[in-house]
Amino acid sequence: MRIGALEGGGTKMVLAVCTENGEVLERASIPTEEPAVTIPRMIDWFKERDIEALGIGFFGPIQLNRSASDYGSVTKTPKLAWTNTPVVKPFEEALGIPVAFDTDVNAAAVGEATWGASRGTENSIYITIGTGVGFGIISNGKVLHGMLHPEGGHILLQKHPKDTYQGHCPFHPNCLEGLAAGPAIEDRWGKKAIELADRDEVWEIEAFYVAQGIVDCIMLLSPEKIVLGGGVMHQTQVVPMIREKVKKMLGGYLSTSQLDNLDSYIVLPELNDNQGILGCAKLALDELQNR
Amino acid sequence: MRIGALEGGGTKMVLAVCTENGEVLERASIPTEEPAVTIPRMIDWFKERDIEALGIGFFGPIQLNRSASDYGSVTKTPKLAWTNTPVVKPFEEALGIPVAFDTDVNAAAVGEATWGASRGTENSIYITIGTGVGFGIISNGKVLHGMLHPEGGHILLQKHPKDTYQGHCPFHPNCLEGLAAGPAIEDRWGKKAIELADRDEVWEIEAFYVAQGIVDCIMLLSPEKIVLGGGVMHQTQVVPMIREKVKKMLGGYLSTSQLDNLDSYIVLPELNDNQGILGCAKLALDELQNR
Repeated sequence: MRIGALEGGGTKMVLAVCTENGEVLERASIPTEEPAVTIPRMIDWFKERDIEALGIGFFGPIQLNRSASDYGSVTKTPKLAWTNTPVVKPFEEALGIPVAFDTDVNAAAVGEATWGASRGTENSIYITIGTGVGFGIISNGKVLHGMLHPEGGHILLQKHPKDTYQGHCPFHPNCLEGLAAGPAIEDRWGKKAIELADRDEVWEIEAFYVAQGIVDCIMLLSPEKIVLGGGVMHQTQVVPMIREKVKKMLGGYLSTSQLDNLDSYIVLPELNDNQGILGCAKLALDELQNR
Repeated sequence: MRIGALEGGGTKMVLAVCTENGEVLERASIPTEEPAVTIPRMIDWFKERDIEALGIGFFGPIQLNRSASDYGSVTKTPKLAWTNTPVVKPFEEALGIPVAFDTDVNAAAVGEATWGASRGTENSIYITIGTGVGFGIISNGKVLHGMLHPEGGHILLQKHPKDTYQGHCPFHPNCLEGLAAGPAIEDRWGKKAIELADRDEVWEIEAFYVAQGIVDCIMLLSPEKIVLGGGVMHQTQVVPMIREKVKKMLGGYLSTSQLDNLDSYIVLPELNDNQGILGCAKLALDELQNR
């Protein structure tokens, strides 16, 4: 089978054709410009590639409620040109095939849960820590949407006692994204994460915030596996520090076989940069099956 | 139909017979003593009442994984006499009917989502704030278990700037339960919650902690409705304070019709003290249907 996948980000759109077995047959990317320019370009790309269904993982916030009149649209977003832009509809109309739709990070969670680090679980979380912080959550084997979709980057945290930085989020003085995403690191230390690799105090504070977010996830969602993706996590030296702090913050309260072995509970992704498009392909397969 | 319901707490067991429409036909309670005393007494009560299925909501932690050898047991618990005690098995053997099993607070969440304040939603949270703090979570129309079950009372919070109290939880210096459950209030102020009803500073701090917990729930789980139960919430003057702080802490970040009207989003239970047993009855009905 040939399944289309579109991972829509604020700076670029990744387009791909995948198989039902999680192989990527072809992959391209184009810059994200205005919808009137970018959407037709993407449609043309897929038109030439004879796909049976399309899965879209898009930057948010987006409307996922199928009974809403604006289902399949980007809603209110800081990327102003895309505010209230229908995404699903133009692809359905132009391609005449089933189109699945979810957030970019939910798609990545589905990719890792199907073919990657969290495969074999029914309850997993994919956290991406990069320009922002996003959470994709799979609960009872299904992507969790709820009222809107998770916005876990904005959970509220206790400040690190040595951190005087005021946070980078315009909405919340002490949310995870505002304290731990790439721009917060750069703003706090005056350098990019990659240039701070050997500065222990940087990763001590980073691990403190990410660990709190993980502990709150464990307490509220009880996942079987937590996958840490995104550009900041390329600084893999922070991962053992995160595990250590999670253990300390849990304080021995919970006892499960998974928590006895945090090395295989809190892990890095396995699909390199393909978790997003592969998750889109899986969502498209599910959409085909449910029609 | 006659459906049995058992809400198992640390101090008392509530036994009931309900109908499939959410009526309570009969209700009794007995003190929680040792399992060897209490379990046979409960079995005798149900034996005389000709029930078709039994739903049990029990204090935790409990084993909910059906493929585990100790499925249906209380596991490690501070109520030492009940450590590693099978609960489902003796009822199944003595009564010969389907037995459903979940946490007490998940049962309450199911009760309110079926016949109470959160009916009509697929994603809701029931938070009980009393001797402890418990979270029952329904996601995609199903009770959320995950690796174990939610222990949302132990999410980690930022301390209130005026609160010098060190917390009541032996595991975590700054978890919701340790800062906001009944024993924490009594320990912080030297009086029981009910005697502190007119002290604004008490409820200012309480609302600050509960609101943080709710904001984290909204960000991670995106519920369509949040129901606040438990003895501390009998101090209903705190509920508008909680809503106000939730609004402030959200900072206008999310936009949904539900969040535009917090009076009908964060609500009190509607089933009085019957949400637990009615939820047990619903779990028993589901168990019957799935056999």
